[in-house]
Amino acid sequence: MEGLMMHYPLTTTTILEYGNSAFHHKKVISHLPDGSRHEYRFSDLYKRTKQLANALTKKLGVTRGDMVGTFAWNHYQHLELYYGIPGIGAICHTINIRLSSQQTEFIINHSEDKVIFVDATLVPLLEKIAAQLETVEKYIIINAPEGFTTTLPEVLHYEDLLKDNSEEFEWPALNENDACGMCYTSGTTGLPKGVLYSHRSTYLHASTILSPNAANCSNRDVMLLIVPQFHVMAWGFPYMCILAGADMVMPSLHLQPEAIIRILQEEKVTKANGVPTIWLGVYEAMKKNPPKEKLVLEEYLVGGSALPASLIEGFERDFGIRGVQAWGMTETSPLGTVARLQPKHESLSEKEKLHIRAKQGIEFPGIEMRIVKDDGTVAPRDGKTMGELQVRGAWVLRSYFKTLNQENFSEDGWFKTGDVSTIDEDGYMHITDRTKDLIKSGGEWISSVALESALMSHPKIKEAAVIAIPDDTWSERPLASIVLADANEKVTKEEMMEFLARDFAKYQIPEHYVFIDQVPRTSVGKFDKKEIRKRYAEGKLG
Amino acid sequence: MEGLMMHYPLTTTTILEYGNSAFHHKKVISHLPDGSRHEYRFSDLYKRTKQLANALTKKLGVTRGDMVGTFAWNHYQHLELYYGIPGIGAICHTINIRLSSQQTEFIINHSEDKVIFVDATLVPLLEKIAAQLETVEKYIIINAPEGFTTTLPEVLHYEDLLKDNSEEFEWPALNENDACGMCYTSGTTGLPKGVLYSHRSTYLHASTILSPNAANCSNRDVMLLIVPQFHVMAWGFPYMCILAGADMVMPSLHLQPEAIIRILQEEKVTKANGVPTIWLGVYEAMKKNPPKEKLVLEEYLVGGSALPASLIEGFERDFGIRGVQAWGMTETSPLGTVARLQPKHESLSEKEKLHIRAKQGIEFPGIEMRIVKDDGTVAPRDGKTMGELQVRGAWVLRSYFKTLNQENFSEDGWFKTGDVSTIDEDGYMHITDRTKDLIKSGGEWISSVALESALMSHPKIKEAAVIAIPDDTWSERPLASIVLADANEKVTKEEMMEFLARDFAKYQIPEHYVFIDQVPRTSVGKFDKKEIRKRYAEGKLG
Repeated sequence: MEGLMMHYPLTTTTILEYGNSAFHHKKVISHLPDGSRHEYRFSDLYKRTKQLANALTKKLGVTRGDMVGTFAWNHYQHLELYYGIPGIGAICHTINIRLSSQQTEFIINHSEDKVIFVDATLVPLLEKIAAQLETVEKYIIINAPEGFTTTLPEVLHYEDLLKDNSEEFEWPALNENDACGMCYTSGTTGLPKGVLYSHRSTYLHASTILSPNAANCSNRDVMLLIVPQFHVMAWGFPYMCILAGADMVMPSLHLQPEAIIRILQEEKVTKANGVPTIWLGVYEAMKKNPPKEKLVLEEYLVGGSALPASLIEGFERDFGIRGVQAWGMTETSPLGTVARLQPKHESLSEKEKLHIRAKQGIEFPGIEMRIVKDDGTVAPRDGKTMGELQVRGAWVLRSYFKTLNQENFSEDGWFKTGDVSTIDEDGYMHITDRTKDLIKSGGEWISSVALESALMSHPKIKEAAVIAIPDDTWSERPLASIVLADANEKVTKEEMMEFLARDFAKYQIPEHYVFIDQVPRTSVGKFDKKEIRKRYAEGKLG
Repeated sequence: MEGLMMHYPLTTTTILEYGNSAFHHKKVISHLPDGSRHEYRFSDLYKRTKQLANALTKKLGVTRGDMVGTFAWNHYQHLELYYGIPGIGAICHTINIRLSSQQTEFIINHSEDKVIFVDATLVPLLEKIAAQLETVEKYIIINAPEGFTTTLPEVLHYEDLLKDNSEEFEWPALNENDACGMCYTSGTTGLPKGVLYSHRSTYLHASTILSPNAANCSNRDVMLLIVPQFHVMAWGFPYMCILAGADMVMPSLHLQPEAIIRILQEEKVTKANGVPTIWLGVYEAMKKNPPKEKLVLEEYLVGGSALPASLIEGFERDFGIRGVQAWGMTETSPLGTVARLQPKHESLSEKEKLHIRAKQGIEFPGIEMRIVKDDGTVAPRDGKTMGELQVRGAWVLRSYFKTLNQENFSEDGWFKTGDVSTIDEDGYMHITDRTKDLIKSGGEWISSVALESALMSHPKIKEAAVIAIPDDTWSERPLASIVLADANEKVTKEEMMEFLARDFAKYQIPEHYVFIDQVPRTSVGKFDKKEIRKRYAEGKLG
């Protein structure tokens, strides 16, 4: 028997309308590429998004199901695109600005973007490939400085597009399962693959992650969105903040540690998100040059790669700011788990607590996870048994865009993440490695991530990336590439082996070490192990 | 274009499975009718609910779409029914134990309950009408004491029903739009009307109200569920607490102020819900007999009728406990709005803050509201213009059960609440009256609720209920029926009129006053104005 409740689709338009009704006075603050500060209210966002909707449909001829690209920093105009494009039933395709020209070209042609909204500072990246783009009819330039010129064809300026459009617009009735956004995974191997989010998945993700167990986001917060809008929808924060009535601070290209610290101070930011690299940089800058006044910042949510326990510890000890680890992937919208302590952990030692907080954590309602062993059976939740992490849920993809290949899915429909993980008795998931980064030595598995975490807790070591290198005896052995905290303060191989011996079995400890200036990274800031392997995996050691 | 995300139905089973996965160690604590204390974990709830599911299908022959009644207090068995019945695709119909025999009989026959689960202490209420119940095949007795006997036919004991059933049960695949629960509105006029909740509406309501802007419920909380499970699904708290991982405390029939205070102390309760009458009782008992140790209780969420500003103030001043006002109806699952202060209110005076907190507040995401004037136009949000509150949203009914009559809905599909309200510039809704309680005097409207609130803030007055009485000159005039705080401390008519003159225009101030021992109440604790009118509206004054 059907329940007798109203049909009420969960869409991004619902979110925008809600923000204007319940929180019209809340702010969106943008630190724009030219260094100027822009501030307006949710009610202004609302009106301008309706102007944009009129412009998209009437001036640009964008219709339902069309793909509209964005190639831009975090700011209010990009936020307007986040609501305006899906609002008319089109799809907001956020293009990662950090990919190679070749990948960018592939993505734009593959997704068939009809229009691209591009930040003036990023235009040169598109100019290089414009001749190869097959479907783009128009480029809309955002934040163009005076005297701006470009070789891009069919150019229009964002403010010129919006002006003279009515602030009244009747949203079309949307099906909540319609697509609203798309991101491509950057893919360290192979071609980028598109993930096509629905209105429903976007709404449910945003409305779930604001929970006190997760981002704990309310109308009392001023949220700094460091995670780029071109990267997995900025973790859904542009939608979550409106649902929660939180002020939003958008830093555009001001992502250097000093710039972030200045914005945190000026805007009295209470919470923020970002990848570990960002927070490592901020921490080091604050250590060197401690802020005169204590920051209002209470906590930062971290994901993308593992947050080193040493960073959690240092930030909290030195500045009273809490690091909260989360986990997710482009394929999971992205947030799937979060690691916060619970009352049952209160009696634990500080070290034990840190150990839990450095895990990836428990799943959000709406997400399910399991660990599948090599033999295909589900692993027990004992905190030890490793296997591949598989997930399913309300904001997990069921297929990549334009791809029939279902190799990333189990036969019973779970998404295979490619992460090697454990789940402990309390349900805390811990990623021990990427399947392809796991080292198999003499028939035993060695976790590269566990070695990296341990090495990075050494006071003289800033960063460490561990890969497998071929070995005649053991088939594979670990190699650690090390970035020193201070290039003048060397650390010996013996010192490192002794240090690791506290936590690792003998066979797990690397005997190969190389010193590098910095760890090569992918476009989204993760360690680029493919690159490190290229340099060292042939056994040519430094 | 459809998004490529997984199909993942939002059901009560999803909630139960989540609780067992992420929070299996969290507790359900029941203070049972016989005074004993029962404690188990979410993992036990999970296993026993699966046993119940087996028993329902195999022993009782309950199938999808069947209506199963509950007539019970708040405790773990009732919680098992909240998950077990909808889990197999049947509908959990919670019957209000405080209705008249006639109403109860009507409801059970109208809903066609096949089985009724009934608390032993409540059996006498059903025995009286059992002969008239047309569809009930079986009565399952919960918490029967030794030597229990009954005249009910076809009786089975709850534990006997469960025992010997497997803890394994494969949930059927459910459509999220299927019905999962039903409550009848008690209806001060006319026959009770059934509201048929869906899995989806139940899930979305629960997952939204745990927000830090609303109930602010997390795995750090111990929640006392005072609102009965037989009354609008205990405000969805049995579902919310599992999603949030909060410990639940169920008081069964221990609802006297002293019992509640004892439970708050013993269980270290952090948050609770309840109607104003409950909290008024608790406040007075605590004033008389202040607890030796400060309660852990941080705040209580209040709804059902308006929380007097004087109670908010007193509780906070005397015991440091915050009252948070919410609004809802059986027809809205129930929660629709909540009144919390926001950072923008920080600069206001304490009196102004209290004024905002005594409103019904802003809507939750998923709910929309508007005020419609007599002429059918939507009222401006100025905090002054009154009209009927209309709502729509993801957990608002679209029709009553077995009713074709759509008189409670606007032509464009909004639910007409029957509440007279205003909405202010900040979006805070304030109920000034029920449409049928509004007093029309000399062509001007007078709000009975506003007069009641003002009178109840008088130190000598405990409660006040205002109704309209016929008047030859003005058509209607207000009459105030007063319950004194201390029967020996009289207050004169002149004193009250002078007191009201501070806030009300002359024509709004009642000249008729009667003193009563207590305000008659409906089955859910609201002022029964129908009853007061019966006594006084013919102009026969006390």
